[in-house]
Amino acid sequence: MNFRGVYSVLPTPFCASGSIDVPSLRRVIDLYLKAGVDGLTALGVTSEVARLQDAERDRVLDAVLSHVNGRAPVVAGTSAEGLLNCIDYSRRAKSAGASAVMVSPPRMPKLNSGAVLSHYLDLASAVDTEIVIQDYPPVSGYTVEPALLGHIAREIPRARTIKLEDPPTPLKTSRIIQACEGFEVSVLGGLGGMYALEDLIAGASGVMTGFAYPEMLVEVVRAFRSGEVGTAADAFYRYVPLMRFEFQQGIGIALRKEILRRRGAITEPVTRSPSVQLDRSTMVALDRLLDWLRATQGVKWISS
Amino acid sequence: MNFRGVYSVLPTPFCASGSIDVPSLRRVIDLYLKAGVDGLTALGVTSEVARLQDAERDRVLDAVLSHVNGRAPVVAGTSAEGLLNCIDYSRRAKSAGASAVMVSPPRMPKLNSGAVLSHYLDLASAVDTEIVIQDYPPVSGYTVEPALLGHIAREIPRARTIKLEDPPTPLKTSRIIQACEGFEVSVLGGLGGMYALEDLIAGASGVMTGFAYPEMLVEVVRAFRSGEVGTAADAFYRYVPLMRFEFQQGIGIALRKEILRRRGAITEPVTRSPSVQLDRSTMVALDRLLDWLRATQGVKWISS
Amino acid sequence: MNFRGVYSVLPTPFCASGSIDVPSLRRVIDLYLKAGVDGLTALGVTSEVARLQDAERDRVLDAVLSHVNGRAPVVAGTSAEGLLNCIDYSRRAKSAGASAVMVSPPRMPKLNSGAVLSHYLDLASAVDTEIVIQDYPPVSGYTVEPALLGHIAREIPRARTIKLEDPPTPLKTSRIIQACEGFEVSVLGGLGGMYALEDLIAGASGVMTGFAYPEMLVEVVRAFRSGEVGTAADAFYRYVPLMRFEFQQGIGIALRKEILRRRGAITEPVTRSPSVQLDRSTMVALDRLLDWLRATQGVKWISS
Amino acid sequence: MNFRGVYSVLPTPFCASGSIDVPSLRRVIDLYLKAGVDGLTALGVTSEVARLQDAERDRVLDAVLSHVNGRAPVVAGTSAEGLLNCIDYSRRAKSAGASAVMVSPPRMPKLNSGAVLSHYLDLASAVDTEIVIQDYPPVSGYTVEPALLGHIAREIPRARTIKLEDPPTPLKTSRIIQACEGFEVSVLGGLGGMYALEDLIAGASGVMTGFAYPEMLVEVVRAFRSGEVGTAADAFYRYVPLMRFEFQQGIGIALRKEILRRRGAITEPVTRSPSVQLDRSTMVALDRLLDWLRATQGVKWISS
Repeated sequence: MNFRGVYSVLPTPFCASGSIDVPSLRRVIDLYLKAGVDGLTALGVTSEVARLQDAERDRVLDAVLSHVNGRAPVVAGTSAEGLLNCIDYSRRAKSAGASAVMVSPPRMPKLNSGAVLSHYLDLASAVDTEIVIQDYPPVSGYTVEPALLGHIAREIPRARTIKLEDPPTPLKTSRIIQACEGFEVSVLGGLGGMYALEDLIAGASGVMTGFAYPEMLVEVVRAFRSGEVGTAADAFYRYVPLMRFEFQQGIGIALRKEILRRRGAITEPVTRSPSVQLDRSTMVALDRLLDWLRATQGVKWISS
Repeated sequence: MNFRGVYSVLPTPFCASGSIDVPSLRRVIDLYLKAGVDGLTALGVTSEVARLQDAERDRVLDAVLSHVNGRAPVVAGTSAEGLLNCIDYSRRAKSAGASAVMVSPPRMPKLNSGAVLSHYLDLASAVDTEIVIQDYPPVSGYTVEPALLGHIAREIPRARTIKLEDPPTPLKTSRIIQACEGFEVSVLGGLGGMYALEDLIAGASGVMTGFAYPEMLVEVVRAFRSGEVGTAADAFYRYVPLMRFEFQQGIGIALRKEILRRRGAITEPVTRSPSVQLDRSTMVALDRLLDWLRATQGVKWISS
Repeated sequence: MNFRGVYSVLPTPFCASGSIDVPSLRRVIDLYLKAGVDGLTALGVTSEVARLQDAERDRVLDAVLSHVNGRAPVVAGTSAEGLLNCIDYSRRAKSAGASAVMVSPPRMPKLNSGAVLSHYLDLASAVDTEIVIQDYPPVSGYTVEPALLGHIAREIPRARTIKLEDPPTPLKTSRIIQACEGFEVSVLGGLGGMYALEDLIAGASGVMTGFAYPEMLVEVVRAFRSGEVGTAADAFYRYVPLMRFEFQQGIGIALRKEILRRRGAITEPVTRSPSVQLDRSTMVALDRLLDWLRATQGVKWISS
Repeated sequence: MNFRGVYSVLPTPFCASGSIDVPSLRRVIDLYLKAGVDGLTALGVTSEVARLQDAERDRVLDAVLSHVNGRAPVVAGTSAEGLLNCIDYSRRAKSAGASAVMVSPPRMPKLNSGAVLSHYLDLASAVDTEIVIQDYPPVSGYTVEPALLGHIAREIPRARTIKLEDPPTPLKTSRIIQACEGFEVSVLGGLGGMYALEDLIAGASGVMTGFAYPEMLVEVVRAFRSGEVGTAADAFYRYVPLMRFEFQQGIGIALRKEILRRRGAITEPVTRSPSVQLDRSTMVALDRLLDWLRATQGVKWISS
């Protein structure tokens, strides 16, 4: 089983006090599911998972899985610096009902390709679950080359989905598929959807990101996968200015939460400290872009 | 004197053999000047300056300045790991007729803010020329904080233009302007123009990048600076899918050269090794995007 | 209150199964205290804290504090990517009886000096405890310049101890002391003790590291601090070949545990995965070095 | 032909004005040759090669080769970001009479193992010279894994010497030798000689570094290679406190030049800007260490 289509990474909404805001989380889930996404991802990088305590991870996962309640598969991020933690997180994810775990190479000095392979082999033999490999070098500090992704996928049939965030992702998608000749892998582009169309053209099976207008990703990916490439492209080019805007380093999560607040899903658009406040110029720029989409691009359901 | 408007960073065209292709360079200059840019930049990062020998730097600079022949100001990249080299490059640039030099913090282990300030102070007292500060952390390995940019600009009135490539650039633009209260600085956004509109909204004075359709940047920046923000934004949102596509890590320069080849300016779209060949998927994606711009966005002058 | 003298960072011993080995931890504590160290540090980087779950952190801290039982002050590492986690860990440390918390700048992209200052200010107003600032750039991804350390120390009188691991530490020690003119700070050198003597000469107040022969550090630091610089230096130069050997990137913790096993403190010299096995050559080299210390340097208490 | 024994990396002495001081360079060469080293390396990282202009590189190389005049083999650093530059530098080195070139992987974003292999293959087919592979990740930004070193060495018989500076070097030495089963490679440890003995125990063939007392390295390596391991070790342990002291990040080159000044070889101990001045504490610590070596370790030829 590989994962295909649109997977939305869930943000973790917080109250003004900083505690987890479960009602907002539920509304976000409903918003994404209503948009028609193929699956959800919890406890990802943009879920601010690095700022959650272990008990909070459990609370988020339980809240997500009980609210989704089988309406869509849920992938749970379980990356950890240590193998035991990764295994433990993965077991909890499986018990909670997750359909797969998503795991980056462990962050450590002097990591090498042998240790990365071992990490995934050890995880796979400890926990009987699907594994999504996340290749996001700035976060893990390690770039997984196509040959190593191919090696992992060959050794572990349950690890044949890759969340790819190592640009240029379209080119790397082609190379991964070449490195996996003889069996099928699924590449899901990340990076806020910024190269979703080009990833698909290169052979990706979908996109996994937390972009706050999943409707746009669904429209693009569905059209593409049903062969209407022109329709997919036309939609993508009109939407990508917003994907690009949301995917700004350092403020991307805050922007996403602000949009989800405007869409009625999140009560407080706060991120956990240390964090950057969105300044007035950024808000003005966001307003202008949403106005443009609504007024001139016929995206009537865009909220102001 | 600060620098404003659109400055185009010139690629360095090469023959198939790898040697510098001066006729192509001249055609690129003409293309940019015909597009109405306010100035040109030679020997920048995307000019593959790190792969030129010292004698080749001189050849490029001479070719650029003699061909421009006063039609526009030329900024010359003169960053170097050592101060003496930076001074020497800057003197040559000044002698050759450049209007300013562009300098990053020197790449070195254990760099600190005091050493960065000294580097610019020493350069400024050695060479009587305008200095553009380039803030591009992945290249220099050092992030120049707004307070330090303000400090440099206060101490060196000739160093009040900043080429900003540290995202999120719109937010940092606001902060730099705050840190420079009491005197005027000019911030020029880089990053392939990907955030040009948002940079302008935040107070930037223009854009400095090598995007292969300078006409688009000129249209956006001119409209914005003459107060027609809506016109600027509308143009920008239609063009930014292409800016985003061109600005792909690892293949951006190759894509730019390929587009300039299609526009008749560059004979061979080769970059110096080690380099990445554009694969078929990337070419298909480029074709589709240019077709869309031409067919549906009314950009009639887009070449196929 | 500043911290001075020798602080030993405790490793976290594990059973072969990977679970925490509390009896070994107690023996390590006794070994360090018997050596005469001035204090202990739990949950530091070399305690493999990044591979502990939250519940395990609590278990380790409780085990340490109950076994130390007031015999020496205990510093607890409470660094976290998020402020709330850092505060929560720090509160637990204080409740458990720790004398101070040790905190690095939070690891995050786009961190800046203002955010680092805020992190410490917010922590200090949330938890009434002494704070040791850890300056270890490879781990936190951020270098704290002397001016910022001075700024933090000036604003937060409870944050005037610095664990310094940004080489060259002797030179930086001098600069920190200059940046803190008008009040007293305590600099404790880290880096396995490799520059302990030179740090002391530059004005450091001691050393905080996990070197497996704390007796050596105690001998050096005591002699130095009582004015017998020649005695301190002579001892240091004889011992530093071993400090250097132990402090090898990627295998330092494994070497430390192997030595503590030989000293009878740790049952299994295992580190948590992903980990590197000590190879035969490394073992041979260790044997030779310990033999040399015992046979020719008169270090009779060195175990074989 | 592989390279074995002690290769000393030559510093580039400068006059107070910053220009190259050829008479000092000649005296340094004589000092190293008199010490009995097996070869010399020019234009290495610690030769401040990154701060030399192309014409200065030629001057240094000519000065070195004409002064050495066949008394020992000379390796020339020819690393460059671009392949053409690397080839050109290597041709000049060969013409000038160098016995080998030393080349790091090219510094570039998104480098991968295939591009590294191609870089060496292309170099080897363009220039018929011995190639020393330098594996120094902080400088090149890329870690060459043992398998890739083995692959390169297998494909290019002229590239079977590795200057290894990726710690832990002893462990990596063992792994490289394993990865090169079936043919002979020579590993030369770098890192200021700090792990020279352990590298030799692991199978290294020598050391290549710029340590200012080459006599010490010669004594250690000769004893070891003639089977007197105990003698080698005893000497090494007494000398390594100084190697460790000299090899401080950020000030190592300045310290080396200061020692060579004291030894009468270098007139002005200046490094090119941006540079760090050695402070008083560092000088005091150096004096003390040299005194200890002279007074108590019987190193009579140590200069004060």
